[in-house]
Amino acid sequence: MDTLLETPLPPTDPREHLTSPTTRAVLRVQHTMLAAVREYLSEQGFTELLPPVIGPVTDPGARGAKQVDVDYYGHRYKLMTSAILYKQASLTAFDRIFCIAPNVRLEPLETSSTGRHLAEFHQIDVEIAGASREDAMAVAENIVRHAVRRVVERAPDELSALERDTGAFAGLLSGTPFGHRTHASAVAGLHDLGHAQSPDAEIDWVGEALLSKGSDVPFFVTDYPKGSRGFYDKESRDTPGTLRNFDLLAAEGYGELCSGGEREHEYHTIIARMRETGENPAKYAWYLKMVREGIPASAGFGIGLERLTRYVAGLHSVWQASAYPKTPGVVSP
Amino acid sequence: MDTLLETPLPPTDPREHLTSPTTRAVLRVQHTMLAAVREYLSEQGFTELLPPVIGPVTDPGARGAKQVDVDYYGHRYKLMTSAILYKQASLTAFDRIFCIAPNVRLEPLETSSTGRHLAEFHQIDVEIAGASREDAMAVAENIVRHAVRRVVERAPDELSALERDTGAFAGLLSGTPFGHRTHASAVAGLHDLGHAQSPDAEIDWVGEALLSKGSDVPFFVTDYPKGSRGFYDKESRDTPGTLRNFDLLAAEGYGELCSGGEREHEYHTIIARMRETGENPAKYAWYLKMVREGIPASAGFGIGLERLTRYVAGLHSVWQASAYPKTPGVVSP
Repeated sequence: MDTLLETPLPPTDPREHLTSPTTRAVLRVQHTMLAAVREYLSEQGFTELLPPVIGPVTDPGARGAKQVDVDYYGHRYKLMTSAILYKQASLTAFDRIFCIAPNVRLEPLETSSTGRHLAEFHQIDVEIAGASREDAMAVAENIVRHAVRRVVERAPDELSALERDTGAFAGLLSGTPFGHRTHASAVAGLHDLGHAQSPDAEIDWVGEALLSKGSDVPFFVTDYPKGSRGFYDKESRDTPGTLRNFDLLAAEGYGELCSGGEREHEYHTIIARMRETGENPAKYAWYLKMVREGIPASAGFGIGLERLTRYVAGLHSVWQASAYPKTPGVVSP
Repeated sequence: MDTLLETPLPPTDPREHLTSPTTRAVLRVQHTMLAAVREYLSEQGFTELLPPVIGPVTDPGARGAKQVDVDYYGHRYKLMTSAILYKQASLTAFDRIFCIAPNVRLEPLETSSTGRHLAEFHQIDVEIAGASREDAMAVAENIVRHAVRRVVERAPDELSALERDTGAFAGLLSGTPFGHRTHASAVAGLHDLGHAQSPDAEIDWVGEALLSKGSDVPFFVTDYPKGSRGFYDKESRDTPGTLRNFDLLAAEGYGELCSGGEREHEYHTIIARMRETGENPAKYAWYLKMVREGIPASAGFGIGLERLTRYVAGLHSVWQASAYPKTPGVVSP
């Protein structure tokens, strides 16, 4: 698959999409994956929570995407762009939580043909009290491995209908550990490939696809520069300016699956990070009250469900992994 | 429990709610219930779908509650009040589907102390192609029985912490079939109790609590009058004016758990029913195009997840069954 080409848009007719044998096979793969994720996390002692879809404030860290306002009994609320604030707060109830969180982000129109952006999507959101980045990475790796294994075992007909060569999962299923490289090393690698990647920013989606093409198992990129992420990714005490965070990239050019990291959880640090990122702390009243009175140190991550489905099912576009895909800027059900 | 008294509001501090041993036990009960529901439906060949949270139009049938507008790339979208339109459309992909759907309804302020209303809640939403009302009722009964059984088996410590007397489930667990009565009989029963229930309307929440107190297993009320429901509940061909639908009421005064029925699926009938209920068909463009080109006959239902949790856990209020409860009219995370 050439993941750098523009990909087709979804059919404008929902019937054409819903009745396609491809869609049916993909949604069965997704059903199987969701069951596998819940099975794994429940066995590991995680509690599934149902996160709010609206609230007074949401994650400001969605790069380039706009938030959606809603009028809630005369108050301006937001649709959730991610569950991060609720995930941290929920660790006061349970040490290990997860949710399958619906998110809405008004992505810029130019993302409509990347094959990797939807205005409405879901994250497999995990947060673990007292965990290090490495603990969180191990859980993310285990979830992906378990989900792929269950789909190969339980949805072989669907993978076959999708012409997904399960040989692509040989390394992953035999237990090859996921690779690790730093953001700085990934940037240097992209420069060697002739791709102009800024060393101070999130790796762009073309860069992620290029890196991802060079690997036959998923791999982690760690230590992103501070300016590239939200206020909640923890800054390294040893190398200030670098975050204790990670992305997980799929193999075969499918690009980013997951972002995560250790979290800032101390009041004064969070206020300072909010100010650095241009956020107004006054907006975050309920969250900052929780933080000031104490929330646990933690690490966690969000796996893009439709992106993981795209990788596992071998799809050209993430919209193929949604029953009612919302392409940025396009009016659709 | 006296289900007719006004119930307390949730703590204004989310920490107080999240760290309460009651909340922790309730959310573990809910986690166990959700796993049981998915286990049962997956074994029965249902596919879980993730429904949109926003779209151009939503269920108009939420009685007395207002819809929430959102601005989606300059178009006026709605937050979903129920997944009904997507459930019917999705039967073009699969014969048996379910979802755990987040819904937002701006309920009137006077519902804030009923113990039974949240502005944000979830439904266990099921739809079955080619099914009769009786088929759907059997699935709803099986889901409730299976969920209660699994909670009793797997969360005994939580039930005990909640002081929930599991003797209350003796009839349900021993297989006593859920009762059935018609709306007309329920109205007559309420008149005998001195409660002024209109024969042409949905049974009010006080009436539901009164009926529910008189039973030690959940029971169905069927054949609601046409004016009381949305356009999608199928009208009886034998007794026009009466719907082929049902509610499921909990035992012990906990009131309504679930609404469902056979669905209208023919274009001209749906247009006529929309006109009767004051809906403008032009708003429903994508749905009516699906209907005009053909969707399966079906029956289905939505079980209020937080209401089912309230019944199983024996709670005074439905807000106790949510990690971040939104009481109608109250600003909260």
